[in-house]
Amino acid sequence: MRVQDQLWERGGNAANTSVVLAQLGVKTEFIGTLADSTLSRLMVEDFHKYGVLIDHCIYHNNCKPPMSCIIVNSSSGTRTILHSNRSLPEVMYEDFELLNLNNYTWIHFEGRNVEEVLKMSERVVMHNGQFIESHDRIQISLELEKPGLKPSFCKLLPKADVVFLSKDVAKESGFQNGEECVLKFSKDVKPGAVVVCAWGELGAWAVGPNGEVVHSPAFPPAKIEDTVGAGDTFNAGVIYALSRGSSILEAIMQGCKIAGDKIGHQGFKIDAGTVTT
Amino acid sequence: MRVQDQLWERGGNAANTSVVLAQLGVKTEFIGTLADSTLSRLMVEDFHKYGVLIDHCIYHNNCKPPMSCIIVNSSSGTRTILHSNRSLPEVMYEDFELLNLNNYTWIHFEGRNVEEVLKMSERVVMHNGQFIESHDRIQISLELEKPGLKPSFCKLLPKADVVFLSKDVAKESGFQNGEECVLKFSKDVKPGAVVVCAWGELGAWAVGPNGEVVHSPAFPPAKIEDTVGAGDTFNAGVIYALSRGSSILEAIMQGCKIAGDKIGHQGFKIDAGTVTT
Repeated sequence: MRVQDQLWERGGNAANTSVVLAQLGVKTEFIGTLADSTLSRLMVEDFHKYGVLIDHCIYHNNCKPPMSCIIVNSSSGTRTILHSNRSLPEVMYEDFELLNLNNYTWIHFEGRNVEEVLKMSERVVMHNGQFIESHDRIQISLELEKPGLKPSFCKLLPKADVVFLSKDVAKESGFQNGEECVLKFSKDVKPGAVVVCAWGELGAWAVGPNGEVVHSPAFPPAKIEDTVGAGDTFNAGVIYALSRGSSILEAIMQGCKIAGDKIGHQGFKIDAGTVTT
Repeated sequence: MRVQDQLWERGGNAANTSVVLAQLGVKTEFIGTLADSTLSRLMVEDFHKYGVLIDHCIYHNNCKPPMSCIIVNSSSGTRTILHSNRSLPEVMYEDFELLNLNNYTWIHFEGRNVEEVLKMSERVVMHNGQFIESHDRIQISLELEKPGLKPSFCKLLPKADVVFLSKDVAKESGFQNGEECVLKFSKDVKPGAVVVCAWGELGAWAVGPNGEVVHSPAFPPAKIEDTVGAGDTFNAGVIYALSRGSSILEAIMQGCKIAGDKIGHQGFKIDAGTVTT
């Protein structure tokens, strides 16, 4: 079969979030593992293009880079994702330990490789313990996107200041909508943390320290072109807004707007006009 | 969906044939167009790995390399090929004109971009006209693999010394089997030319100057792993054998053996034991 077009994109949730944040003017570093192969140069070149720092990435020889082939049906918009990740190791605590935490104001974790990420987040919590003023502390955000990690990821929840839950994780936990999801998960996070759940075309819900659930509608484009990475873009918008002192409602609206812009075109180039904060 | 494994391969019919020939010890050059992109480095690295010369390849900026995503069903062995070629230009006669034909003893053409390939083959025929001894002449082989080029490719048939017809082209022409195909096509080629048609698990048929149709069975491996490029590998085996003076039957048997070996493993690494000529 002839396909109408092909598009190559660097992928990965946190990597996508990083390139969006960098375009919003935030000095952003991505820390992940990369296969030392020709294909990985596509990732490195893309990070460079957007100005994302990758100085602490870990390169692994003799392994295949994770890859997804995403087949998009141009009439229905449905996606079929064929994903392969055979051999690329995860980031380990030993890698994270090399970071000078004084250089960071916000650290966003993908909720995977739970035992190691737990140690990393505990290191950040311990680092934060030396500061009296909250603005000196590193904000920790955590994305729980893929189902199937429960209950192990529950240990991560109390470590984060902001928790992003996906629709898939919400459904796996038996919740029917975003409001129910953020309310119930707010019992498992640390006091005062923000819990966010985006729900596709229904927008996003969030709850914060005062227990009030807020909702933002979605801001869909006239024509949906590419939904790959919409959630990662949403996360970037929320992190950006919260890090600049926006309210929780403003932050999820920012996330929905920037994600709506993203799905209107292919790839992760952000239209500056969608940033309102 | 998780896939069991992924494999990246440089592709292209003539490119595949080239890397097989190079492994058989033949000094081989590939001439084609390449998109000047990171992805094309995969091709260049692979050609270098097998020692295929690519000094006359033409690089094009601002275009996407042709790409196929081949989904293999591990139970049924069926392949679904999603192919994209949006913008990479073909090799033109002007590119071919730069070659010093004295450096070549055999030139194999993919039967595509017919008007240009016709001019190229006519240049070779003219070059050959200066030689009395047939062993001084450049042998021309031509692969007609994809259906839908008829009737335009008929102009190419009288230029070649060896014509490879695929099962698809045979069927498109109304032939039910390889024997019928080579017999009928032998009327359209130049006198004395060899006509070859491989027919998957049924083996291959060929006819030469004396009009006798010969057949080689297939030599399937114990387990079929990867049939991508089997035909290109077959072609390399036949070209190799004919260029060393083998009979037509020996040549198609060589082609079937090496193709049978190829489909027993992934990729184009050739087991030296399958070369009998």
